[in-house]
Amino acid sequence: MTHVEKPLAGVKVLDLTQAYSGPFATMHLADHGAEVIKVEIPGSGDQTRDWSPLRNGASGYFGYINRNKKGIALNLKSDEGKEVFKDLVREVDVVCENFRVGTMEKLGLDYEVLKAVNPGLIYASISGFGLEGSMAKLPCYDVVAQAEGGMISMTGFPGQPVKVGPAIADNYSGTYLALGITMALYQKQKTGMGRRLDVSMVDTIFSILESGVVEYTVNGKMVGPSGNRDPSIAPFDSFPAKDGEFVMACGTDKFWKRLCEVMKKPELVEDERYNSNAQRLVNYAELKKEIASWSERFTIREVEEQIVRAGIPFGRIKNMQQVCESELIKSRNMLWTVHDHGIGEDILIPGTPIKFHGSEDRVRFSAPVLGENTKEILSDLAGYSEKKIKQLQKDAVI
Amino acid sequence: MTHVEKPLAGVKVLDLTQAYSGPFATMHLADHGAEVIKVEIPGSGDQTRDWSPLRNGASGYFGYINRNKKGIALNLKSDEGKEVFKDLVREVDVVCENFRVGTMEKLGLDYEVLKAVNPGLIYASISGFGLEGSMAKLPCYDVVAQAEGGMISMTGFPGQPVKVGPAIADNYSGTYLALGITMALYQKQKTGMGRRLDVSMVDTIFSILESGVVEYTVNGKMVGPSGNRDPSIAPFDSFPAKDGEFVMACGTDKFWKRLCEVMKKPELVEDERYNSNAQRLVNYAELKKEIASWSERFTIREVEEQIVRAGIPFGRIKNMQQVCESELIKSRNMLWTVHDHGIGEDILIPGTPIKFHGSEDRVRFSAPVLGENTKEILSDLAGYSEKKIKQLQKDAVI
Repeated sequence: MTHVEKPLAGVKVLDLTQAYSGPFATMHLADHGAEVIKVEIPGSGDQTRDWSPLRNGASGYFGYINRNKKGIALNLKSDEGKEVFKDLVREVDVVCENFRVGTMEKLGLDYEVLKAVNPGLIYASISGFGLEGSMAKLPCYDVVAQAEGGMISMTGFPGQPVKVGPAIADNYSGTYLALGITMALYQKQKTGMGRRLDVSMVDTIFSILESGVVEYTVNGKMVGPSGNRDPSIAPFDSFPAKDGEFVMACGTDKFWKRLCEVMKKPELVEDERYNSNAQRLVNYAELKKEIASWSERFTIREVEEQIVRAGIPFGRIKNMQQVCESELIKSRNMLWTVHDHGIGEDILIPGTPIKFHGSEDRVRFSAPVLGENTKEILSDLAGYSEKKIKQLQKDAVI
Repeated sequence: MTHVEKPLAGVKVLDLTQAYSGPFATMHLADHGAEVIKVEIPGSGDQTRDWSPLRNGASGYFGYINRNKKGIALNLKSDEGKEVFKDLVREVDVVCENFRVGTMEKLGLDYEVLKAVNPGLIYASISGFGLEGSMAKLPCYDVVAQAEGGMISMTGFPGQPVKVGPAIADNYSGTYLALGITMALYQKQKTGMGRRLDVSMVDTIFSILESGVVEYTVNGKMVGPSGNRDPSIAPFDSFPAKDGEFVMACGTDKFWKRLCEVMKKPELVEDERYNSNAQRLVNYAELKKEIASWSERFTIREVEEQIVRAGIPFGRIKNMQQVCESELIKSRNMLWTVHDHGIGEDILIPGTPIKFHGSEDRVRFSAPVLGENTKEILSDLAGYSEKKIKQLQKDAVI
């Protein structure tokens, strides 16, 4: 079977991003065909090269989010390094960075400088609090953005707010940056025009609070954490079984009726405490006990059989082993095998969730060891001679 | 000041999506210039038209995620309605849908049918478990995807896993769909080729677990919930103050040293229980008490002043009121005013987190009341005569 070319084939990205947010953005671009050139500091490289899980002295974290990228080591603090960087900027469509606000200016590589070098350049930044304003230069980590953006106040249990476990402010701002870059690529292809793009971690969190913001701005109501419960639908929660908890969501009266049949409590359908979603919300404490008194007599598997047979939305709270080894993840090809150049072995990493029918759905190549493609890129992309490259090595620029 | 055209100007999207995930995808496209035509069932419309917050009988939820879209009411179950739909498909770049898997086939409007009508069509779907496989046809809500994809097992407190408050499986799968559609638009502009795109809610969750998956696949280690703590950095957590909790993240030894100075406990810097990140993790319970014994003597504001002055990443756990009224959200223009046609008043809704310098950063127009633009679209886009439109009204097709 022949495969259709990936959608971003031919796009060139010069990627200064570090840690998680920016590299997650360029991972999406690389997965779908862009040539992403990761620029790292000679000698040390991206901080994630030391992040857990480590194996054979190399990081599976780094390997996961930097697959399908090429790597160049380049000292941007030296004058020669800056010139090399500008020579590369001339040849690419996109530059992206997630340094502390002001760093690119200090390096003399800010938007205005690079735009003069390449007028059609798309220049994309991720920051904690945005590129401008009173908080722009403050340091930000994921948990800070989750707190300041309102996510923590909506997650957890009443009186016990909690952050989202994985660093969602990082990866979501990265995904937004990838979306903005791709929009700009569309426009650039049509008009030749470059763009300046600004995504912040706090804005990102604020944009994904669902009804939280409009409940306040429209009706002055404050949404707080409510555990696994949906505040406006019942029963829609986690429930106990013999061997753990499961989730179940009865979004309509039809589902509720079916649940009563499954529980062999048909009298509850007409019970005035429960005969509408509004009543089920009012009497939720009793309702939850009623359901639990049924579900805790069974194992999760036994409950699952009965609920799924009734067509009611059901979910297992899978841990990492259960989810990684599930039939579903396998059948969706959501774990890719890559022979990681740093680890020197095959490892399994999450695949892309954006599935284009007809294109290959697998890794193209491993994340680079530090400076793996430096010579190739300076020669092929910037057109440097072997002699010039040797001189740059001697001068410790690359 | 003249504004630069939005990046997706000229793109046309026929949008069958309902509820939250799909409409969030097309909201991004509409915010950045695409002409999005929302197709709804005559008489009832999208279910979110009834979702809280309600004001003057209309939904702020609907108004928020459907701003910048036009609306057409069209009965897709009637033969005439299907023909009208195909006439519209001929004129657009993208069709998207998030029905239960199999619904488009039942309607006779599946990909193969529409591709025959418009060979360059981008056809994009969101589903719970993917378009194929053993679970494809099962019903899925956000909480089910958060459970099955592994998010719940990584969020909350040890022994008390909890879902992310807002419906993250919905909005993130929507954002991925928008990203995939935009990639396909880039390719279509270059080659004329259409694409079939498949995003699932469980794949989406699985793709944002950060180190969770690779800790298991590379080292067999299971990551569970750890409250507000980062499992590999300390101190990086929430801490108590007189009037509530705050978060603070000391990602490096340098920050730790500064914190000891702020706490006026300089002896802790060299204390062998805490003199490296590894030691601080081992002795975290003691360390947290040590920090709390300092921080709980102050209000959050007093702690903030000291920590921010020391350059340490700090965050307030803001509730909806605090975040909506913060200087930061105002300065970032993250609340847009829209005169909502359903509510009949100005309301405040979250703006776009993707900021393109030079383009207008505000709402273009209100979400439509049901069928608001039906005649205009049938006339302008499909070229229907007034007579034909009247006949369709008479036949209750529109």
